[in-house]
Amino acid sequence: MNLSRRQALAGAAAFAAAPLFAAKTARAAAPLADKQAPSFYRYNVGDAQVNAISDGANTFPLPDTLVLNAKKDEVNAALEKAFMPKDKMTIHFAPLVINTGGKLVVIDTGNGPGAFAASKGKVGQFATNMAAAGIDPKAVDMVVISHFHGDHVNGLLAADGSLAFPNAEVLVPAAEWKYWMDDGEMSKAASERMKGLFVSNRKVFVDGLKKKVTPYEWGKDVVPGLLAVESVGHTPGHTSYVLSSGSDKLFIQSDVTNHPSLFVTNPGWHLMFDQDPAQAETTRRKVYDMLVADRMRVQGFHYPFPANGFVEKDGNGYRLVPAPWSPAI
Amino acid sequence: MNLSRRQALAGAAAFAAAPLFAAKTARAAAPLADKQAPSFYRYNVGDAQVNAISDGANTFPLPDTLVLNAKKDEVNAALEKAFMPKDKMTIHFAPLVINTGGKLVVIDTGNGPGAFAASKGKVGQFATNMAAAGIDPKAVDMVVISHFHGDHVNGLLAADGSLAFPNAEVLVPAAEWKYWMDDGEMSKAASERMKGLFVSNRKVFVDGLKKKVTPYEWGKDVVPGLLAVESVGHTPGHTSYVLSSGSDKLFIQSDVTNHPSLFVTNPGWHLMFDQDPAQAETTRRKVYDMLVADRMRVQGFHYPFPANGFVEKDGNGYRLVPAPWSPAI
Repeated sequence: MNLSRRQALAGAAAFAAAPLFAAKTARAAAPLADKQAPSFYRYNVGDAQVNAISDGANTFPLPDTLVLNAKKDEVNAALEKAFMPKDKMTIHFAPLVINTGGKLVVIDTGNGPGAFAASKGKVGQFATNMAAAGIDPKAVDMVVISHFHGDHVNGLLAADGSLAFPNAEVLVPAAEWKYWMDDGEMSKAASERMKGLFVSNRKVFVDGLKKKVTPYEWGKDVVPGLLAVESVGHTPGHTSYVLSSGSDKLFIQSDVTNHPSLFVTNPGWHLMFDQDPAQAETTRRKVYDMLVADRMRVQGFHYPFPANGFVEKDGNGYRLVPAPWSPAI
Repeated sequence: MNLSRRQALAGAAAFAAAPLFAAKTARAAAPLADKQAPSFYRYNVGDAQVNAISDGANTFPLPDTLVLNAKKDEVNAALEKAFMPKDKMTIHFAPLVINTGGKLVVIDTGNGPGAFAASKGKVGQFATNMAAAGIDPKAVDMVVISHFHGDHVNGLLAADGSLAFPNAEVLVPAAEWKYWMDDGEMSKAASERMKGLFVSNRKVFVDGLKKKVTPYEWGKDVVPGLLAVESVGHTPGHTSYVLSSGSDKLFIQSDVTNHPSLFVTNPGWHLMFDQDPAQAETTRRKVYDMLVADRMRVQGFHYPFPANGFVEKDGNGYRLVPAPWSPAI
C-alpha cells in the first residue's frame, strides 16, 4: 500500500470533495413523533412470564399535604434530589398480566376508560398497551385485585360499562370486599374522597360486576404460584403477592409505597392516600427489610415503568435499583 | 338499604354461588410470548426529539481482564452489589435517532446485520427497533459516528453490503478518521483485537462507504444544536456531544463509561476496551464531575435501555439515576 497516498486521502481536503447526500435533494424535515413507544415489558420468573403494562402517568401540582408528616419544602427537596421537577408530582401506574403457564392473570386494572377520556390518554392506557403487547382481554382467565382504589379497579369495566375481561373470574381480598361493601363503614366515611371511593366501588362491583367476585384469603395461593400476602395500611384489605416458579421469586408489592424516589427513600413518610398511615409505615418497613434481606426482585404498581427492580438499604431508608431492561426474552 | 342483607351478601357463602367464568369453558393456556416489546423510547430536549433505540444486549462469561486494574473477585462483588449475576457480563447498546426539527440524525449505528445473524437477534437490533419506531432509514439526513468500534459503525452497512442509510451524510471525528485510516498506526497494532479493528474499519469505510465521509472537528456543531465534544481515551478520536435546544440540554456521552453499575460506580476502573485507559479515566472523571455540577441529563450508549438519566456523587464514584419512563410524549 502507498502510505503517503493513503495519508493524503485521509486529509481534510479529500473530504471536501465527498458528496454531501443530504444537500442533494430538498426533503421536508421529518415531523416529531407524537406517540411514545408502547409501554409494555416482559420478563420471566421461572416458568411464568410477567408483563408489566403501563396504564400511563398523571402529573399534577404538588399538594400541600401529599406527605402528611413532612413539609412541602422537604418533599420538594426530595423531588429535586431525585432530579424530578419541583412543585409537581407524577404518579405512575403499572398493572400486570402474568402468564403462569396455566392461567393468564391480570393483577389490577388501571384507571379505566373514563380516566383515559378525561386525561386525553395520559392515564387509562392499560387497554391500549395490553393490545400492543398482543394480549386479548377475552383470553384473561383471572383478574386479581390488590385493593379497591380507582386506579386499580376502574379498568374492570369497559367504556360501555360491560366487563373489560368478559371471561375472567374476578378475585378480591376478602377483607377489602367486606370493608367497602359494608354500609356501616360507608356511613362512617369522613372525607369527600372516602365517600367518593365507597360510591365508585359500588358502581364498579355492584352495578358493573353484579357482585360476581371471588374473595380470597391471605396466606394462600390465589392462583397456583401466586401467594396473597397481607400488607394492610394503605387500605384495610390491601394485598401484596409472591409469585414463585421453581427457585425464582418476585414480590409484587402493590401500593406498599407510591413513587420510590419519595417513599422508598423515606419509608417514614405518610402518603395522603394511606388510609391508616401508621400501619402503612409498619407494613412498608417490614416489606422493605424483607426485600433487602432476601434480595428479592420487586414489582411496584406505582414505580415508573417497567416498574421493577431490587432494594438496597440507604441510610435510614431504602433505594430502588431498577432492573436493567433486557431487549430480548 | 337493608344492612343485614348486604352484610350477608358480603359473606363468603354468597360468593361460593358466584359463577367462576374461567371454569366454564375449557380454553388452552395462553402460550408464553417469545418476543420482547420493541425497545425504543422517545423524549424531547427543547424542540428536538431524541429516540433511544436499543441495538440489543450481549451476555458473555466474565473475562478475567474485563477491568484491567481490578481483580475478578472485585468485579464480581460489584456485579452482585448491583443485583446482576456473577461471572457474567452484559453489554447493552443504545444508538440514537435525533430529530433536531430540521434534520434526522443517527448517532452510532450498532453492531450491524452480521452480528444480528450471528447472535440470533440478541444484538444488531437497531434496524428492527428503528422500524418499530416508524423511522425510515431512507429519511435519515446524517449519521454521526462517535468512534470506530464495531458496535458503533458496523450498522452503517446493510446485510448485502449496501448503505444502511442511503441518503445520509456520514460524519466522523477527524481525529478518529486520521488514526484508523493511517497505515502506520495499523502496522503498530499489537493485539489481535486492534489488528482486527483496523481491518474491519477499512471494510466498512473503504470497501463499504468508499470513503464518502465528512470529518468533523471538536468544539463545533456537527448539526445545528449538536456540539461535538472531545472525550478521548476510549479511542484516540472518541467524541461525546451536547444536544441543546432553548435552555434544555442533553449530554450524549458515547463510551465515556460502559455499564454504569461497574464504571460509573467505579470511575477509576480501566475497561479492557479503553485504548488509553489512564486518559479514559481522566476524561471520565472530568465528564462525570461536570454532569454532577450541571445536573445535566445524560444518554449513554452502553447504559441499559432507555439508557439515560442523571448523575449524583456516591462516595468515591458516581451513581446513575435513571430518568423515569414517561408513557406519553
